[in-house]
Amino acid sequence: MSADIGLIGLAVMGQNLILNMADHGFTVCAYNRTVSKVDHFLANEAKGKSIIGAHSIQDLVSKLKRPRKVMLLVKAGNPVDWIIEELLPFLEKGDIIIDGGNSHFPDTNRRYEDLTKKGILFVGSGVSGGEDGARLGPSLMPGGAPEAWKEIKDIFQSISAKADGEPCCDWVGPAGAGHYVKMVHNGIEYGDMQLICEAYDIMKRVGGFTDKEIGDVFSNWNSGVLDSFLIEITRDILKFNDVDGKPLVEKIMDKAGQKGTGKWTAINALDLGMPVTLIGEAVFSRCLSALKDDRVRASKVLAGPTIPKDLIKDKKQFVDDLEQALYASKIISYCQGFMLIREAAKTYGWELNFPSIALMWRGGCIIRSVFLGEITKAYRSNPDLENLLFDDFFNNAVSKAQSGWRKTIALTTTYGIPTPAFATALAFYDGYRSERLPANLLQAQRDYFGAHTFRVLPECASDNLPLGQDIHNNWTGHGGNVSSSTYQA
Amino acid sequence: MSADIGLIGLAVMGQNLILNMADHGFTVCAYNRTVSKVDHFLANEAKGKSIIGAHSIQDLVSKLKRPRKVMLLVKAGNPVDWIIEELLPFLEKGDIIIDGGNSHFPDTNRRYEDLTKKGILFVGSGVSGGEDGARLGPSLMPGGAPEAWKEIKDIFQSISAKADGEPCCDWVGPAGAGHYVKMVHNGIEYGDMQLICEAYDIMKRVGGFTDKEIGDVFSNWNSGVLDSFLIEITRDILKFNDVDGKPLVEKIMDKAGQKGTGKWTAINALDLGMPVTLIGEAVFSRCLSALKDDRVRASKVLAGPTIPKDLIKDKKQFVDDLEQALYASKIISYCQGFMLIREAAKTYGWELNFPSIALMWRGGCIIRSVFLGEITKAYRSNPDLENLLFDDFFNNAVSKAQSGWRKTIALTTTYGIPTPAFATALAFYDGYRSERLPANLLQAQRDYFGAHTFRVLPECASDNLPLGQDIHNNWTGHGGNVSSSTYQA
Repeated sequence: MSADIGLIGLAVMGQNLILNMADHGFTVCAYNRTVSKVDHFLANEAKGKSIIGAHSIQDLVSKLKRPRKVMLLVKAGNPVDWIIEELLPFLEKGDIIIDGGNSHFPDTNRRYEDLTKKGILFVGSGVSGGEDGARLGPSLMPGGAPEAWKEIKDIFQSISAKADGEPCCDWVGPAGAGHYVKMVHNGIEYGDMQLICEAYDIMKRVGGFTDKEIGDVFSNWNSGVLDSFLIEITRDILKFNDVDGKPLVEKIMDKAGQKGTGKWTAINALDLGMPVTLIGEAVFSRCLSALKDDRVRASKVLAGPTIPKDLIKDKKQFVDDLEQALYASKIISYCQGFMLIREAAKTYGWELNFPSIALMWRGGCIIRSVFLGEITKAYRSNPDLENLLFDDFFNNAVSKAQSGWRKTIALTTTYGIPTPAFATALAFYDGYRSERLPANLLQAQRDYFGAHTFRVLPECASDNLPLGQDIHNNWTGHGGNVSSSTYQA
Repeated sequence: MSADIGLIGLAVMGQNLILNMADHGFTVCAYNRTVSKVDHFLANEAKGKSIIGAHSIQDLVSKLKRPRKVMLLVKAGNPVDWIIEELLPFLEKGDIIIDGGNSHFPDTNRRYEDLTKKGILFVGSGVSGGEDGARLGPSLMPGGAPEAWKEIKDIFQSISAKADGEPCCDWVGPAGAGHYVKMVHNGIEYGDMQLICEAYDIMKRVGGFTDKEIGDVFSNWNSGVLDSFLIEITRDILKFNDVDGKPLVEKIMDKAGQKGTGKWTAINALDLGMPVTLIGEAVFSRCLSALKDDRVRASKVLAGPTIPKDLIKDKKQFVDDLEQALYASKIISYCQGFMLIREAAKTYGWELNFPSIALMWRGGCIIRSVFLGEITKAYRSNPDLENLLFDDFFNNAVSKAQSGWRKTIALTTTYGIPTPAFATALAFYDGYRSERLPANLLQAQRDYFGAHTFRVLPECASDNLPLGQDIHNNWTGHGGNVSSSTYQA
């Protein structure tokens, strides 16, 4: 019996992907380093399905149809390299290795180059949707060796989620592009989660809402423009009571964990010089939450405003404003995410398919939402769209949302509720629509203390301020006319 | 004639440091790869001073007293390694190489390790103050081989700036600690500059102030709590008119340049998990400013509020509020910077002298200010201070500043002026003083979709929610009880 694909790594994600593949008529060969896991899986979850097992790498490879397709669902980092090393002696040119873990895209770039030299087609695929997604239809973001796509397309698009009848899986681009797009997805996920947390915090601390009331608000929001998986699970979470009948969420320690993919996105944004501020603030917010002991101590000594009881007279208006604040901030976050991907495509020389990226996130993954359908539409109508804000739908949406957005942030600013993600989104919007920012003063400062030079605005060019040239001004009357070359600031 | 120290690299910083050393009675041997620069320097700026020249590395080394001290002021990166390679054959054990460029601290760590093995004492020293500082008294932040300190202390503390009679130079710590502290200095410099730019923008766009009026405000501020080099030069810049009598600053292109040290700080903060949000926003603001073409286009299509003429009735109150906003935001930025250094000391195993760090920045460097005297005081009275906000002076200062700070941000939020640094500072303050943040919801979300587990608040622990354990809740009623090990989010 020859399997269509082999899968290595039987943790929950790997198991669920195998079951999903089997449900779609594919024969899968399962392997795990701890071989007892293979036997246990075959005797239980996999029983009666088109799933076979292997007790060694060699055994696995021998059971695969050619060109062989081996998918790895193992811990990102060295384990991926180790398994590739183990696989290589048994593979032939044209065989395909797919890394379905959360590898960092520079690692995928490196593996792609190494394996391309050896004639192996390497694919790095983002897989999102958690355990449920893997079982029932994940979002899949494969990139790497383009020749591999026709071989895996059928399996990948069959098992993936569908949105509006289309598979949430398409070819992303070369080398590490698949894992890159997955990384940005995760960064956006950090942003969405932070925005939801801020909305919850505002309703709780400013509005004095109970968890049940907040759950009802999320329930309503889930049938409007914010309709999405994360809003839906937030509703469920807020309505989930512990055995004593009290909301479980209020018993959970407020220290956020993270496994680094949001951080990778923020670092990449800094490296590429793209102002992806919302993800940055979301990552930093998790860091601040982790400093629980400091916060407890600070809460006792640092002053803040008092929030009057019954501050909110018109609860409906308050909630509507908040919905607009969340919606507009979310639009900004996706704008920033797509700006980053666009810049990455330029910097790394990748040709990327923007409508497909939005479509891949439309279903199956953690950030799936109705909203992503609008992004798909925007990029389908203009694949070269420079910025989502230049699309009429999003331009109008933000424009309409502005009043509630500004009111909400003015309120939290006044009453001392931290809303770093809401606030940075608005600051970005106001900065992005500023023909002139105060960076002219900053350039003057840099030239003053470090002779870093500046350029002149086209409309102000003159003989002593020539257009397109690096100009150094002798601000103090003393000091030299040497512009800086070694000093950095 | 034997020189006290050799200096390689005759760009403006190197030349000025040599002249400074000569002024303080040291004999310096100057060398530059392009040897004509040496001759030109000796025949001009260096003429009649205790400065000699060298025409080769060997020549330079032969003219130095033992243990030899060679300071490099060359472009950071490979050139530093190349010159070290060239120097090594001519040096003996116990000789000292000082890298005074803006090297990235991991490079300094690496060079320190390599050279320590070879018996060479390596020092990486931050040098700040621009060309004027180098000439008249820079801030110097040396770190590396501790045995080198007694050999270079006299030269370094003689040429450095003095503040309140104390040299703005002390030993920072081992390995790359000197360059690390310089990096954070530069990050803070990015923050200070961004805050000043936001204040200028608010006065211009909300207050309708002329540049002269804004210059007068900075002039006043410079005799108050904000008294600092950057406020002073901002005053000068705003009052500097072009040949046509109009303010030069308004003719400067509003695209900020950067050479990466602010970015390094933000990336390091992300790596160490410290919420250094203000520097992050300052770096991203430079990135956004650079997208000038996008902004010009966006300014024509994206809607924003109209700022009424004569919006500001009480200009004095408006300026006072703004001063408080700037002051409080600046306090937060320094808090965050020192939190980062503290975490770095832990992570990298460096013993650092916190009062000295503040003192080194007190004079000579770009961020020099009266304010740093207060930080020095705070750390002298409690060298183990966990956070500046726990010091009475800063606690009181922020507490007093709050009202103006909140009013200013509410105003810019309402009227559409981007103030990302002000806003993130306030969000940090309100987050830091929050005993509970909404990260409980975030942990619930992570557990819901990825089985990432959570912990319970101590006061809510129970039999089914045991304290100190990683708990997974089956939120949906279906799905497994397997917690995640490979999936990352």
